[in-house]
Amino acid sequence: MSVYQAPLRDFLFNITELAGLDDVAKLPGYEEATDVVEPVLEEAANFASNVLDPLNATGDREGAHFDNGNVTTPKGFKAAFKQFADAGWIGLPMPPEYGGQGLPQLLSTAVLEMWQASNMAFSNGPLLNQGAIEAILLCGTEEQKQRYIPKLISGEWTGTMDLTEPQAGSDLAQVRTKAVPSGDHYLLTGQKIFITYGDHDYTDNIVHLVLARTPTAPEGVKGISLFIVPKRLLNADGSLGEHNDVKCAGIEHKLGIHASPTCTMNYGEKGGAVGYLVGKENEGLKYMFIMMNAARFSVGVQGYSIADRAFQAALSYARERVQSKDIAAKEWTPVRIIEHPDVRRMLMDCKAQIEAMRSLAFYTAAQLDHAHANPDEKAKAEALALVELFTPIVKAWSTEVSTQIVSEALQCFGGMGFIEETGVAQYYRDVRIAQIYEGTTGIQSNDLLGRKFLKDNGKTAMKAIGLMQATVKELAASSNEDVSAFGAQLGKAVQALAETSHWLGAQGLQILSGKGDLRAMFAGAVPYLMLWGYTAGGWMMGRAALVAEKKADDAFYKAKLATARYYGDHVLPKTSGYKHEITVGGASTLAIQEDELDLDRRRLALV
Amino acid sequence: MSVYQAPLRDFLFNITELAGLDDVAKLPGYEEATDVVEPVLEEAANFASNVLDPLNATGDREGAHFDNGNVTTPKGFKAAFKQFADAGWIGLPMPPEYGGQGLPQLLSTAVLEMWQASNMAFSNGPLLNQGAIEAILLCGTEEQKQRYIPKLISGEWTGTMDLTEPQAGSDLAQVRTKAVPSGDHYLLTGQKIFITYGDHDYTDNIVHLVLARTPTAPEGVKGISLFIVPKRLLNADGSLGEHNDVKCAGIEHKLGIHASPTCTMNYGEKGGAVGYLVGKENEGLKYMFIMMNAARFSVGVQGYSIADRAFQAALSYARERVQSKDIAAKEWTPVRIIEHPDVRRMLMDCKAQIEAMRSLAFYTAAQLDHAHANPDEKAKAEALALVELFTPIVKAWSTEVSTQIVSEALQCFGGMGFIEETGVAQYYRDVRIAQIYEGTTGIQSNDLLGRKFLKDNGKTAMKAIGLMQATVKELAASSNEDVSAFGAQLGKAVQALAETSHWLGAQGLQILSGKGDLRAMFAGAVPYLMLWGYTAGGWMMGRAALVAEKKADDAFYKAKLATARYYGDHVLPKTSGYKHEITVGGASTLAIQEDELDLDRRRLALV
Repeated sequence: MSVYQAPLRDFLFNITELAGLDDVAKLPGYEEATDVVEPVLEEAANFASNVLDPLNATGDREGAHFDNGNVTTPKGFKAAFKQFADAGWIGLPMPPEYGGQGLPQLLSTAVLEMWQASNMAFSNGPLLNQGAIEAILLCGTEEQKQRYIPKLISGEWTGTMDLTEPQAGSDLAQVRTKAVPSGDHYLLTGQKIFITYGDHDYTDNIVHLVLARTPTAPEGVKGISLFIVPKRLLNADGSLGEHNDVKCAGIEHKLGIHASPTCTMNYGEKGGAVGYLVGKENEGLKYMFIMMNAARFSVGVQGYSIADRAFQAALSYARERVQSKDIAAKEWTPVRIIEHPDVRRMLMDCKAQIEAMRSLAFYTAAQLDHAHANPDEKAKAEALALVELFTPIVKAWSTEVSTQIVSEALQCFGGMGFIEETGVAQYYRDVRIAQIYEGTTGIQSNDLLGRKFLKDNGKTAMKAIGLMQATVKELAASSNEDVSAFGAQLGKAVQALAETSHWLGAQGLQILSGKGDLRAMFAGAVPYLMLWGYTAGGWMMGRAALVAEKKADDAFYKAKLATARYYGDHVLPKTSGYKHEITVGGASTLAIQEDELDLDRRRLALV
Repeated sequence: MSVYQAPLRDFLFNITELAGLDDVAKLPGYEEATDVVEPVLEEAANFASNVLDPLNATGDREGAHFDNGNVTTPKGFKAAFKQFADAGWIGLPMPPEYGGQGLPQLLSTAVLEMWQASNMAFSNGPLLNQGAIEAILLCGTEEQKQRYIPKLISGEWTGTMDLTEPQAGSDLAQVRTKAVPSGDHYLLTGQKIFITYGDHDYTDNIVHLVLARTPTAPEGVKGISLFIVPKRLLNADGSLGEHNDVKCAGIEHKLGIHASPTCTMNYGEKGGAVGYLVGKENEGLKYMFIMMNAARFSVGVQGYSIADRAFQAALSYARERVQSKDIAAKEWTPVRIIEHPDVRRMLMDCKAQIEAMRSLAFYTAAQLDHAHANPDEKAKAEALALVELFTPIVKAWSTEVSTQIVSEALQCFGGMGFIEETGVAQYYRDVRIAQIYEGTTGIQSNDLLGRKFLKDNGKTAMKAIGLMQATVKELAASSNEDVSAFGAQLGKAVQALAETSHWLGAQGLQILSGKGDLRAMFAGAVPYLMLWGYTAGGWMMGRAALVAEKKADDAFYKAKLATARYYGDHVLPKTSGYKHEITVGGASTLAIQEDELDLDRRRLALV
């Protein structure tokens, strides 16, 4: 397996030419960003290639170990985490007052990609740690911030997010973990499952952010509170004290990310784990979404990062593997398989879609920076609305497409792709979780259709569609044939998106007036999200094409333009079925009763 | 994990109402078929559910073992194989004169599905064994038939197919294994890889069918010969003699089908393995295709079989797992996830496509029976042409779609789908090989476009499209709204297929006259195959709908009709992008030079 090479040139293109570094660098706090972009990218690329990538396959083979309540990570992981922390990577986007570097999300999105592409199982630790930091930063008391955040940023401790329970996967209304007040703290009892890096051997302390219910809490999601539950309690001077009543009861045997321990955590086996309330009682769901939204965005990045790593591996294999003749040649002289049109098609399919996903994520990251730091309240609110619209799309569309891409990359290897030693099978196994955790594709799609579209009366969606239509116009006006041909395809997709959105809006109004079928409408939620994703990805490729056509004597821009054209000819046409599926197909999705879904297994005619 | 339940009712529907058992039963040799269909299906279903299914997960966990040249299968497999053989299952479609039961392919396709669905790793053994039997049956001498076939049918011995070498995966022109004449036999030296069940502990002897070159053979595929190379040589009286110079050098560590040993086989380490020529020298490729075509069809069946097994598991889970409220309910009362529209959509997506794939395979199986036994030479030739057209489609379309379906089934499990203990992750790992072995999707697509369409001057393709158009007409004429709405969608797909085929035919003529771009045309080979698959699957669903609308007061037929409607609303619209991709997109697939595919990894602007 070739060593990971970060797509630095495409990062720079996205950051500076497509997502608007200039504007981000004008925001208060980000003034230094422009100067550090290149050195930070270079440094992270080296770390990813030299430290994380070599541990990826060995970590998968060895996996995390569990023994009597303690988790040990695979060989080399602990040392790599120390190097990672010492180099200051955890604090990249974190506020300087707690030891961070305060760099914009736009830059840290590129850095995140390099961690995820080179070693997804390792990088899950920092990903969740970041969620924990953000929750305390945004909802904790100043004392909590001072106590926990500098140590979570320095890597002396790590943080986790503890949401899921056996009966409460996606449904947090069912959370049962109890938190009973006891002086200045609470005592927690209950079990959490699927806790990523819930235990490990990196650090002496682990700070769990745990959802639980107080005795007076109302039922459902309105009765959930958020607690800090450290593995080790702190003495008055801040030094580590006794062990809290928290225990890892086991780790899961999973399809992929073997090196990332997925822990069952037991709280209060000895009477109650000491926990400290974050923010207010019963406001936990709100805080959880703060952690969750950042994590959702990051998982979307994770998806295309692994896809890019698998693409790289496939490209390298296709350039070396000699097999069969060129289809247009008379003589049977075997050629490298990259010469075969279908292998080229698979590679282009990977390349074009990865670039589209990356650009949409970087665009969203820039909006995140504006939402965070823009002093103009209106601009800030508009940016936040776009972030909220695009977060479920980045999460779910990117991970759905990435799973397909990794499969295509594996296919380039032929039989070797199925052999574990080749390495690409690991990416295939690893990437599959990204469609599930931090909210499945179904959940993201309900979020998009319900909260982000219907509840917003389509306002932000229509604004985004308007931006896309403006790009379509620009593309159509180009004298470059590739650009205008691409524009025609994008135009069709944007039109389908607009028409489908109007239909859904009208349906929503019907349902409010007691007519229409809500369930049939939501049967189209995932197709609607996918239509958004492919179209928004196309919008990004269109914006890229407009930049590239002016510089097409440079090889990078020439390839970018050709990649956009590929996206227009091969990816956008895929969207042409979604409108029918959503606007007509809801009824047929629900037509068969659930007990009739397997009549073919009843022996009706076979006595 | 719920126990496997065979879709017996759908088998019966396909066999008797869609694929034409009545006509098959009129063919000489198949007169008894009608009477045995139900008892054979029942018996096989019991064997699959009670013997094979329980060994599937344990076999995966334990995997095949390799020790010093010997392969041991997981616990229970050897006993299961003995039961399988003793029950006579190997001989189901084989000629009675060698101990088989001579039943039609139409019936054995249903039986094959049950083996594959319940235990793909186990069933790979019999699948390859069947290929070996067919090769000897069709190309061997009477003496070879008498010597080997009864024992391969009784299960006293097993057979393998030894094609691949390290430098020759898909490209058999590169086969290097040597066969030097030596008296009445040849001495073989060389290495074969990826040999399924190349060694095992089931039987005392294994009959390898090996491709090799004689010293005088021409280069390329025209110089390949086929040899029988038994693991143990036979004494004059037919009893087992000394060990042949054949050795298993190791087994692969694979993504899936862990219980199916994938062997590296060394021939002639001690001077030469004794091999017996099958048929004529240098005709091996032709014989190989005999084995291969049957195996290709079987792998297509394997694809949707695993998809159906995963669908079953998902359906059972979705009926039990309680999570989140009904989207249309006011109160937050958690419901079983099958109530959620998106879960229903995923289940319908599985159900509709599995049924379409199954029907196309059964239709092809009936054509196989006519190609084999129809006394009317014209009917026989027409059936054979349809078999040849549909074999790459059944193989590649079914396996591509099945991989997506298993992924959708896994998604129904949420986080539990990623945990190995749940069982669906195994199906996800297992099914992935089906797109690769016995010829990748790319190879099948080149076969379809090149051999089956262009070389045939589109004759058989146009005939099949004509049959589809007739079905579209019938559907359009129906007064049932589901039927006519389905017909409209199928009509669009058939039209796109016809127009795309005409375009490809015209391109082919241009290329013959020295114009046009052969490579760009073949860049559309896989999309063309997928367009065929979805459309032909739709044709089958249309034929099913025409049967079902007349009996729609019966729950099975009502569900069949609703399933067809789902296929029309959700699956067929997906095909609307293929025409553009194939007829316009070829150039953009090949526009970027191979060394420019990763310019983003060169540090052009980052010094």
